[in-house]
Amino acid sequence: MTQMEQARKGFITDVMRRVADKECVDPKYIRNAVAQGSVVIPANILHGHLDPVGIGKRLIIKVNANIGTSRDHINIEEELLKLSTAIDARVDTVMDLSTGGDITKIRRAILLASKVPIGTVPIYQAAAEKIGDDGGIIHLCSDDLFRAVEAQAKDGVDFMTVHCGVTLAALERLRVQGRITDIVSRGGAFLAAWMLYHKKENPFYKEFDRLLSIAKEYDVTLSLGDGLRPGCLADATDRAQIHELLTLGELTKRAWAADVQVMIEGPGHIPLDQIEANVILQKCLCHGAPFYVLGPLVTDIAPGYDHITCAIGGAIAGKAGADFLCYVTPAEHLKLPSVEDVKEGVISSRIAAHAADIARGNKHAMDWDLEMAQARKALDWEKQINLCIDPHKAKAYRNSSTPSSKEVCTMCGEFCAIKVVRDYFR
Amino acid sequence: MTQMEQARKGFITDVMRRVADKECVDPKYIRNAVAQGSVVIPANILHGHLDPVGIGKRLIIKVNANIGTSRDHINIEEELLKLSTAIDARVDTVMDLSTGGDITKIRRAILLASKVPIGTVPIYQAAAEKIGDDGGIIHLCSDDLFRAVEAQAKDGVDFMTVHCGVTLAALERLRVQGRITDIVSRGGAFLAAWMLYHKKENPFYKEFDRLLSIAKEYDVTLSLGDGLRPGCLADATDRAQIHELLTLGELTKRAWAADVQVMIEGPGHIPLDQIEANVILQKCLCHGAPFYVLGPLVTDIAPGYDHITCAIGGAIAGKAGADFLCYVTPAEHLKLPSVEDVKEGVISSRIAAHAADIARGNKHAMDWDLEMAQARKALDWEKQINLCIDPHKAKAYRNSSTPSSKEVCTMCGEFCAIKVVRDYFR
Repeated sequence: MTQMEQARKGFITDVMRRVADKECVDPKYIRNAVAQGSVVIPANILHGHLDPVGIGKRLIIKVNANIGTSRDHINIEEELLKLSTAIDARVDTVMDLSTGGDITKIRRAILLASKVPIGTVPIYQAAAEKIGDDGGIIHLCSDDLFRAVEAQAKDGVDFMTVHCGVTLAALERLRVQGRITDIVSRGGAFLAAWMLYHKKENPFYKEFDRLLSIAKEYDVTLSLGDGLRPGCLADATDRAQIHELLTLGELTKRAWAADVQVMIEGPGHIPLDQIEANVILQKCLCHGAPFYVLGPLVTDIAPGYDHITCAIGGAIAGKAGADFLCYVTPAEHLKLPSVEDVKEGVISSRIAAHAADIARGNKHAMDWDLEMAQARKALDWEKQINLCIDPHKAKAYRNSSTPSSKEVCTMCGEFCAIKVVRDYFR
Repeated sequence: MTQMEQARKGFITDVMRRVADKECVDPKYIRNAVAQGSVVIPANILHGHLDPVGIGKRLIIKVNANIGTSRDHINIEEELLKLSTAIDARVDTVMDLSTGGDITKIRRAILLASKVPIGTVPIYQAAAEKIGDDGGIIHLCSDDLFRAVEAQAKDGVDFMTVHCGVTLAALERLRVQGRITDIVSRGGAFLAAWMLYHKKENPFYKEFDRLLSIAKEYDVTLSLGDGLRPGCLADATDRAQIHELLTLGELTKRAWAADVQVMIEGPGHIPLDQIEANVILQKCLCHGAPFYVLGPLVTDIAPGYDHITCAIGGAIAGKAGADFLCYVTPAEHLKLPSVEDVKEGVISSRIAAHAADIARGNKHAMDWDLEMAQARKALDWEKQINLCIDPHKAKAYRNSSTPSSKEVCTMCGEFCAIKVVRDYFR
């Protein structure tokens, strides 16, 4: 039975109890929210030693890190190091997006090494196995896609991106409308290429029930992908994007009818002033299903700094109600991220999530800041460093420039306002 | 005559014309806005070779970088390198906050080397000259403060932070209310210490007309400082902060009556959900005077990453109507920033300003993103790199990981969605 089915039958599972514990909420709240679909717990029944994570309404905003090989950069040890780096930086989930090398082997190694939920995009593996052929991905058949989904579910993958909303009708709307960057989702592009070549409907849409039966068997949470997400600010919140979202809303209801957990993926590249509307729209059209946003990036002109454009967008999305932030690293749009990029990306998105948690009124989030403020007032540097989101980096900064007095830092030296107040106001 | 006085007399000066040119607006708009006080142009009549910058309503959001020595780190060449680095990164203004070494010499060197407007906080120099004495800043007298202001005005400083709103009444309100971090503004702390020791009113408040007469003589734009700004999220938007803002609103009117240009400084540390209210409050209470925010930082727990907490807050503040963002570097709360920190800080705040410019509907801002999107769609890497906010960093990233094909990057390799669309949709 999936967590949703059990919740609907009134059971509070160990998984729900663990999530409730971590969130400091009543287990009954978790049960009811899972039953309604406003919270998901991606927890494949075959993913052993998993520490489950809840994503959704009234919970702490979660952060995902994408790792994985590309055909141009294959090193399994490096990917495992990215995994442990992301977990050390306190990421909540990791997606293995490998497209190069022995994808099955890499995924199994990541699952084995991970206590956090693992997500994948099964069409990548299906496509990777065809891409050597003449004509490439065109030769995919529907069975190839579902075989990949099932194989990955059997390996214990907790959530999967499936671009079910890339329908023929949506592509026609995209064609009529036109766009600057067309399709920038890899899964979306593969499916669209296949559909237009064969003049056939998207198998993930047409055979959605087949997807649901696999998802139900292993309790894989479906992450309904946004294959038509905008690839630049100018394409944001357009008819193609919203058409797809309408379809995802319908499929959400179908998934719930089958006791399958589901969340919705969102853009992407969006001007700052459209982010709140995008979140509200998703919540309305998809009946309160958790919203998983990629960024969003609030400008297109900052490759090398897209962890920052992502942090801005993620914080605003989180405040507006997004539940789950997919990180973006400084390497985005330029190269496969390095281990350092992964760390920078996780911390940046965690800052965004935390700022939004505070804005949403999460008491525990604010406690952390209060403790830091008290340590700062006390000029207690050891405590300040330990409370930092990245104590290692903060310590390295402080140690690189020695102040004349241990009480201050070299920014202000004796001009430290806190020291002045302490010395003169007593 | 100040720019404001000339604008009120109906003159469009060369300075106004240059600002209008850079902003692509009608010079008459600039003249009228300067006359009303909703735009300032910090341009000391003695700052030669200045390329003037407009700050305020309907203009592109500007970014300031703070540089300068502390008593714990004095190296004039390094500060000049920070200046040129900030200017190369296209900062709009620079503040010299030096508190260590020969402050006059450093300031003059910076003014000489800078085509961008230079700001200072004159009380730092006044305090630095006393701090060696027994009892330190307590020995300051009112004349010391005004002497520092006048000397710096004569050197050509374009704008000055003066903490005129730290009044005895505001301090009493602060005392009654209590706070976690009391006062974190250096200028605010010096003045408060002096006022409480001597039981006298703040000279910058009591003798505000004296300040106005100096500002008027040299056309120094007064940046009315927020000496009581919150030093942590828990202290944000409290009675002490807002009491000070009320005073700054009154002083704005007095400055305008004397044809003196004025802007208002704002926090600081603010939870994300309070930023918009803070901007609206400033605009109402200070009659539409330009708002110059420090950050704001949306969490206290990220030293080492405060350029990111600042970018989040700055983007939201800019969208809400803030006109001028003071950068924060990754070194904030830990040490005096290095040259690299200065660059990182400028770029981060420029990203925030740009994202907000787009959200505010600035057409030219969006053009840049559109051009990038078109280059990305065309897989034109040279153009993409050149359009990046930091082409040097973007190039280094791309070159550190060689793709198998020049058309893609190692993130996706052959799985590049844009390439898939191009190859299959023709």
